[in-house]
Amino acid sequence: MKVGGRWYRTIWVEDDGRTVAIVDQTFLPGRFEVRRLTTLAEAAHAIRSMQVRGAPLIGVAAAYGAALGLATDPSDRGLANAIDTLAATRPTAVNLRWALDRMRRVLEPVAPVDRVARAYAEAGAMADEDAAACEAIGRHGEPLLRQAWERAGGARAVNVLTHCNAGWLATVDWGTALAPVYRAHEAGIPVHVWVDETRPRNQGLLTAWELAQHGVPHTVIVDNAGGLLMRQGRVDLCLVGTDRTTRTGHVANKIGTYLKALAAHDTGIPFYVAAPSSSIDFSLEDGDRIPIEERDRAELAWDPLVPSINPAFDVTPARLVTALITERGVCQASGPALARLFPDRSG
Amino acid sequence: MKVGGRWYRTIWVEDDGRTVAIVDQTFLPGRFEVRRLTTLAEAAHAIRSMQVRGAPLIGVAAAYGAALGLATDPSDRGLANAIDTLAATRPTAVNLRWALDRMRRVLEPVAPVDRVARAYAEAGAMADEDAAACEAIGRHGEPLLRQAWERAGGARAVNVLTHCNAGWLATVDWGTALAPVYRAHEAGIPVHVWVDETRPRNQGLLTAWELAQHGVPHTVIVDNAGGLLMRQGRVDLCLVGTDRTTRTGHVANKIGTYLKALAAHDTGIPFYVAAPSSSIDFSLEDGDRIPIEERDRAELAWDPLVPSINPAFDVTPARLVTALITERGVCQASGPALARLFPDRSG
Repeated sequence: MKVGGRWYRTIWVEDDGRTVAIVDQTFLPGRFEVRRLTTLAEAAHAIRSMQVRGAPLIGVAAAYGAALGLATDPSDRGLANAIDTLAATRPTAVNLRWALDRMRRVLEPVAPVDRVARAYAEAGAMADEDAAACEAIGRHGEPLLRQAWERAGGARAVNVLTHCNAGWLATVDWGTALAPVYRAHEAGIPVHVWVDETRPRNQGLLTAWELAQHGVPHTVIVDNAGGLLMRQGRVDLCLVGTDRTTRTGHVANKIGTYLKALAAHDTGIPFYVAAPSSSIDFSLEDGDRIPIEERDRAELAWDPLVPSINPAFDVTPARLVTALITERGVCQASGPALARLFPDRSG
Repeated sequence: MKVGGRWYRTIWVEDDGRTVAIVDQTFLPGRFEVRRLTTLAEAAHAIRSMQVRGAPLIGVAAAYGAALGLATDPSDRGLANAIDTLAATRPTAVNLRWALDRMRRVLEPVAPVDRVARAYAEAGAMADEDAAACEAIGRHGEPLLRQAWERAGGARAVNVLTHCNAGWLATVDWGTALAPVYRAHEAGIPVHVWVDETRPRNQGLLTAWELAQHGVPHTVIVDNAGGLLMRQGRVDLCLVGTDRTTRTGHVANKIGTYLKALAAHDTGIPFYVAAPSSSIDFSLEDGDRIPIEERDRAELAWDPLVPSINPAFDVTPARLVTALITERGVCQASGPALARLFPDRSG
């Protein structure tokens, strides 16, 4: 994505071949700042504190984190320690586990002396694959926006509602939910995005920042407002990302997603989930068994004496999901449909 | 309600018989401050800026505002001006119109010289009636909490979820949605309240403050969280207020209420609306014809360059409302049920 006219990914390796650079999202939308990670501890902190966030990006950041860990200790013990440290940072996004499982599988058979180079290569491959998957999601999702535009007679912009940030900032490039939006925008389909604020971390402001950088018209609303807009006919479709989707199509995503899916269902509006296969947990059937991360109450920014809890995700049952948009195409949110699209993963 | 050990209503007339005192809610929960209103303009500003808020309290504050206006100009023109000025402050709550219609009806036949005294007397009667209506709502609603407690085997607290503030602060005394909570609490039924933050104005923090003053256990959550909690079985019933309910039982209330009603319906949890008859618009059938107030974008507290809108209410269709709790008893959210309970109002 272009920021101030220059092309950026959200994560890359510096010219020294070792240092991992990230866009520090805790400073956005106020300030665009690149942070350099040089140790496993810094990588784990970046994920835990949400300097990097978004399920796909978390996966890639963890892969680079493992490479940083191996640069200090390439032994079997060093590998196990890096993977355990990174796996413990955030529980809900399955990409983290998926990326670390892959790193382990690739690196265990490699001699310690060759592990660092192999780790950077594998993390780089995962970054490229993520960008390609997101680009493919954009390609497969664009017709859904085009159809909505045509259904509206082509007379006005397509109104998309999104929750949280599932854009460029949540991935290596393009985004998941926003990939079809960028693609449609570039194809000349007029798109307007309703952006949920997404309390408590206000990732909606990241989405607004991204969309503004690309010139995509958008309006930020409080999380409470989407239901009214859907009832008023001001939303054509909902489009969100996912942190973990079960093999049966149940979707864990940022807290509040379920409420928007209910409103879309109640008002007859399609509810799409952009789900790269790295976000699909083919080992899990029951959505209610997805671990829900409970984050620090300090994020809520209320007087600390106010009793509160801060769960970060909820689960939207498959019956409320119109379709999943994956890198292999659009499919029903169901076990059989996912198995048909990913026979190699559904074992 | 008791604040720091002393009994308060939210609005009263000072010993001079003229000055209207209010608890200024724009300082809460940080600071408890009484503000004195001496002119029509101050009363209108207090309503518009939400120094007083909550549909029932807005009605009573408008009645006192008319009295303040007449103290300066008791002529027919003065009366009309006071009513027009106050009616323009906020569009959604029907209590405002109801209270001003009643003031007009009572005061028009009265000679200007007697109008001020009559206006204060009528406003005082409305304040007393509001307190009595809320107390009755508490009495009628308490059994619903008791039944939920008994269904749970009496082994744990009843978990009530509420949105916005429909407590003491939204009325003259007791509250609407919170009246049954206070009543159950005093009857020894253990109650715990999940309090929605209620962006953008965070009235949930007012609710938390009230509940803390009374010693009612509670937990504040972001507006996004209620759906997850309902799916996890951590909510026994929802209980909210209303700014305007149509004669057919469609409920306008703080933006976001509709989303919680959908989640309650989806998870089989009762969704109750506490509706004093002053909040029921017996002239209106179609919920979608209730005017939705659009408030200043400054309330959102985002960078002013972020494109945004700020609608303040939404409409929950009657089909999602388990029952209305009125001062005359509990009834279905339907035209026939409301007509049976209020034959004198349903003309």
